[in-house]
Amino acid sequence: MKYGVAIFPSKELQDKANSYRKRYDPHYALIPPHLTIKGPFEATDTEIKTIVEMLEQIASNSNPFTLKVLKVSSFQPVNNTIYFKVELTPELEQLNEALNSKVLLEADAEYSFVPHITIGQQLSDDEHSDVFSQLTMSNVTQEEKVNRFHLLYQLENGSWTVYETFILGDE
Amino acid sequence: MKYGVAIFPSKELQDKANSYRKRYDPHYALIPPHLTIKGPFEATDTEIKTIVEMLEQIASNSNPFTLKVLKVSSFQPVNNTIYFKVELTPELEQLNEALNSKVLLEADAEYSFVPHITIGQQLSDDEHSDVFSQLTMSNVTQEEKVNRFHLLYQLENGSWTVYETFILGDE
Repeated sequence: MKYGVAIFPSKELQDKANSYRKRYDPHYALIPPHLTIKGPFEATDTEIKTIVEMLEQIASNSNPFTLKVLKVSSFQPVNNTIYFKVELTPELEQLNEALNSKVLLEADAEYSFVPHITIGQQLSDDEHSDVFSQLTMSNVTQEEKVNRFHLLYQLENGSWTVYETFILGDE
Repeated sequence: MKYGVAIFPSKELQDKANSYRKRYDPHYALIPPHLTIKGPFEATDTEIKTIVEMLEQIASNSNPFTLKVLKVSSFQPVNNTIYFKVELTPELEQLNEALNSKVLLEADAEYSFVPHITIGQQLSDDEHSDVFSQLTMSNVTQEEKVNRFHLLYQLENGSWTVYETFILGDE
């Protein structure tokens, strides 16, 4: 089964992201607005039990932190994904490192971690320029507390269901 | 904010439900296939903290149980919702009662609890007869273990995000 680990921002921030995703993100219906901290990986039913224990430990060794949306950015020229850029705090970096350093979770070592909330993807070059130049003018800065992350699994239709929530610093 | 409490069945059962929901359920994109154990209710940020504590207690006082899908049923003549009928086990009944007996969670006392996984709704009368007569011929019986439920909240677009997972019998 395919799993992933993500943070759901506040309802307010999700609503804001969805106002763009509705038009610009083909994944709009597959998962709520989120910040991926561990991209999709395969695990068997046995492996996931060990992974859940690891995630519990990682969560209890982590602290709640402040999620700061800095601005609208784009992954161009790599791809035409537009996103809310989130500040890479030490807490987020540690969380991402912890999730990628463990053996079972196949490290994403080849990518550097750019915390983000996608608001548009698979746009044509023209769409991308239009949307991006519009959005860079809007003020999207926002700060909020994060005290949890979620392990999700993917269904056949591509959508994601939450398997379990992990509370940060929860002993 | 609007909250609800639900069980997500196994990936296998969700995939099966989605094969129908895709065509027959306008809520297909808003939430994964689920069994509602506490329908939508309003709670403030303060109230939800107390509710989370209650849910933790209810979960730890409950035991994992077997979810049995019995057959395809319909709520006609009340409405044109078609669903996988789930056996009302003592565990499910107790869970539903616990969630509805607590003061903050406004009891749904006027309805009797019919555990189900919706696979079609808002169908016209003709669609309903067609689909229902087709589906009653297919064998949908299935049994699986349930050891968790989830508290969800609703976004402005009508979709649901998981707030927290509660493990049954987890002390």
